[in-house]
Amino acid sequence: MLHAVILAGGGGTRLWPLSRTHSPKQFLSLLGDHTLLQQTALRLAAVVPAERLWVVTGKEQEVLVKAQLSALPSLGEPPPKVLTEPVGRNTAAAIGLAALHLQRIDSRAVMAVCPADHWVTRPEAFTALVLKAAAVAEQDVLVTVGIVPDRAETGYGYIRRGEPFPPAPTAHQADEIYRVERFVEKPDRQTAEVYVASGRYYWNAGIFFWHASTILEELALYLPALYAALMQIAPRLDGDAEETLATVYPCLEPVSLDSGVLEKSTRVVVLPADIGWSDLGEWTAIHRQSPQDEHGNMLSPNVLDLGSKNSFVLGRDPQRTIATIGLENMMVVDVEDALLICSKDRVQEVRTIVHELRTRGAEVAHSPRTVQRPWGTYTVLQEGNRYKVKRVVVRPGASLSLQLHRHRSEHWVVVQGEAQVINGEQEALLQANQSTYIPAGTKHRLANSGTEPLEIIEVQTGPYLGEDDIVRFADLYGRGLS
Amino acid sequence: MLHAVILAGGGGTRLWPLSRTHSPKQFLSLLGDHTLLQQTALRLAAVVPAERLWVVTGKEQEVLVKAQLSALPSLGEPPPKVLTEPVGRNTAAAIGLAALHLQRIDSRAVMAVCPADHWVTRPEAFTALVLKAAAVAEQDVLVTVGIVPDRAETGYGYIRRGEPFPPAPTAHQADEIYRVERFVEKPDRQTAEVYVASGRYYWNAGIFFWHASTILEELALYLPALYAALMQIAPRLDGDAEETLATVYPCLEPVSLDSGVLEKSTRVVVLPADIGWSDLGEWTAIHRQSPQDEHGNMLSPNVLDLGSKNSFVLGRDPQRTIATIGLENMMVVDVEDALLICSKDRVQEVRTIVHELRTRGAEVAHSPRTVQRPWGTYTVLQEGNRYKVKRVVVRPGASLSLQLHRHRSEHWVVVQGEAQVINGEQEALLQANQSTYIPAGTKHRLANSGTEPLEIIEVQTGPYLGEDDIVRFADLYGRGLS
Repeated sequence: MLHAVILAGGGGTRLWPLSRTHSPKQFLSLLGDHTLLQQTALRLAAVVPAERLWVVTGKEQEVLVKAQLSALPSLGEPPPKVLTEPVGRNTAAAIGLAALHLQRIDSRAVMAVCPADHWVTRPEAFTALVLKAAAVAEQDVLVTVGIVPDRAETGYGYIRRGEPFPPAPTAHQADEIYRVERFVEKPDRQTAEVYVASGRYYWNAGIFFWHASTILEELALYLPALYAALMQIAPRLDGDAEETLATVYPCLEPVSLDSGVLEKSTRVVVLPADIGWSDLGEWTAIHRQSPQDEHGNMLSPNVLDLGSKNSFVLGRDPQRTIATIGLENMMVVDVEDALLICSKDRVQEVRTIVHELRTRGAEVAHSPRTVQRPWGTYTVLQEGNRYKVKRVVVRPGASLSLQLHRHRSEHWVVVQGEAQVINGEQEALLQANQSTYIPAGTKHRLANSGTEPLEIIEVQTGPYLGEDDIVRFADLYGRGLS
Repeated sequence: MLHAVILAGGGGTRLWPLSRTHSPKQFLSLLGDHTLLQQTALRLAAVVPAERLWVVTGKEQEVLVKAQLSALPSLGEPPPKVLTEPVGRNTAAAIGLAALHLQRIDSRAVMAVCPADHWVTRPEAFTALVLKAAAVAEQDVLVTVGIVPDRAETGYGYIRRGEPFPPAPTAHQADEIYRVERFVEKPDRQTAEVYVASGRYYWNAGIFFWHASTILEELALYLPALYAALMQIAPRLDGDAEETLATVYPCLEPVSLDSGVLEKSTRVVVLPADIGWSDLGEWTAIHRQSPQDEHGNMLSPNVLDLGSKNSFVLGRDPQRTIATIGLENMMVVDVEDALLICSKDRVQEVRTIVHELRTRGAEVAHSPRTVQRPWGTYTVLQEGNRYKVKRVVVRPGASLSLQLHRHRSEHWVVVQGEAQVINGEQEALLQANQSTYIPAGTKHRLANSGTEPLEIIEVQTGPYLGEDDIVRFADLYGRGLS
């Protein structure tokens, strides 16, 4: 049986200020209404039924993954299974953990491995690719997908093909499949041009197909320490593996499956594909995939432009006006709390910016202004001296934890929907234009029992306003109490 | 006696998004802590005592002018006199109106005319210039100030000097003074280069000196319709001229004193000056006057830059992070509700942007997010469906009008200072972390009786939230009741 494993543990820096440590790119709607994770799940669901979809992610992102998947009713039931790593240890560990699970329930399981944060413009071609690659994987090889390059891209790794691989006599036998001669890291421009001209090189899309048993064999051979750790985890999978994972995972060496296994294994083949793929690895890639005007610009609706060319101006706040005059080859990303303006040929330096911001301990590197929570979102509207103003949106049926704050009082004004409020000994139902006051030290809970989103404006006052001033008494989402 | 007249009626568009229709550049702190109007007043106050300072401005800006001047205790008492035009009709009318006032109280008054929104880096040289020019004006000529050009600027008008003007035997007689041969409008670059090389051309700074009686004579000669209108106004100056002004002004043809009088008069002389002058007419001028790093950049403290050159990045909101990478010759202005990114050689097109925004009826062309009021400021933090969140700051001792709103209710949370609140029949003193609710239709008043600024967060809810939903019952600032 074919299973699909989505790797959703990445924490990108190159799409800052839209992506943040706590809101990496797979959880963003960069192109289209759905997030990249949702699009990846929907793309795979066309070939693999929902009960055979798996997502590997980090502890911090588990809630977000589940929320985004459960917002896709078209995926069907049961929802995809989510495997949570206590800490990220790169792709070899994530894929090994998934293989272990698959192997346990189906000893001949074939697994498709897909990053959660890539982009595919030809979903039908992707469907055909999955079927073809899964069939090849039945022959106990490691199947990599090689994207036929259409330009001398220096931002991708390349795969050099070797001899044709004799496929089994299937319906797809006429297709080209090759043994992999070698993997090469991101080349310089000149080298990339030679690669593309040769016709023997493909982009490594990070999409793989193999038997769970085959990849475990190869892990045993090339990454024996990881394999040993997986064997410690294996007997716990029936019950609660969380404790074992928490012990074993932190000690693993973070290594990518590419460098740990694929570059060494003799069983690797490459299946050329033309699926309109991009890893959306930096802002120029987003620009390339976006609709453009006749001057090569992508301009958000709130942009008023005079004479710009080949530029990308993304404004996420429709209440802001952006005027651009005479830009050429510029990337502009304007969000609530940050602005990036970058010359197109230097987008790779966005990482440097993020590293510098992290070094400074700047919140803007880590969290977006609008923070996702299991129950909805909050946005900080204003931070002043001893006060903070937030807009809080609670999903229908959702509830914050029963909690109290030691140092801050809160004033809530309902502006949309209906709030079910516990405030000390009192319980009340508040409508729009009603308010309540929660003194510091008072147990309280905010819930939305209605059918439309609940929106409140919260004014916090007090000497300390950090998010960590919270004592939780009961939480629907299993978050730490107190 | 020497009087100084500050022309503060301009409504610039070229420094958008910082300047707005209702907040033109003379009221902004562009360089230094004081606004340009305040700096102009302080510069003149070094030569002219406060009781002989005059400001001509528009009805809409009168409150702002008075507030900014009264915030300058060092000006001395009484405060400068403010002449309010019912509508703006360019400089000939404004100067004529001021001349009329001066003439009435002092038939030999000399008036210095200065725009409120220019920049002078050498205030001592300016002081010397004023004394010198006033002395020349005693000879019944029209004295213009000619700035010695240091570059082939295409954004200024030029004055071509003629024969030396024989000065009266005063202490300043050694100085060069010339008759004006002609005024020329903004030249192209090549022409400007010829002008500068010739040594016979100066920039026209719009700073003038003359007897009030002399300029009135010239107005009678060259702008007889304007002169006739002034003669209608003259008899009313003792009492309340407001009604006459309101009748007469709208019918005046808007004409600049330069084109209406100076370009025609035979009594014009030019006094060359080197006072470090700029009209701050566009963003490149601000850049030129700002401190720059070794790569020619002006970068606000909230800017993190990699490798930019000759660029100007002004970020007014310290809570936002701006990252710039590889900019060259770019102007960036980031404010709460708008962003401008402009190639340096196209800054004059900022006007086109503003005209387009006005055509669209966009609020961002007219009002800044933080709006000045006689009692303080307010800032819209969030506009939602049927609600709006504002931060309101009231100056110590100030009070809003007693008012009511027909369509909106208001929730106030005091976050700083002490609020004296009238709410229907109730009167209360609220401290930080206290709140009140004003239902629609209830008379209310907010005042700051304390000694520190009062800050409240106001959440408005209702079907209509326009600023014009206000019925005023009593106002300290003479604003229209209901």
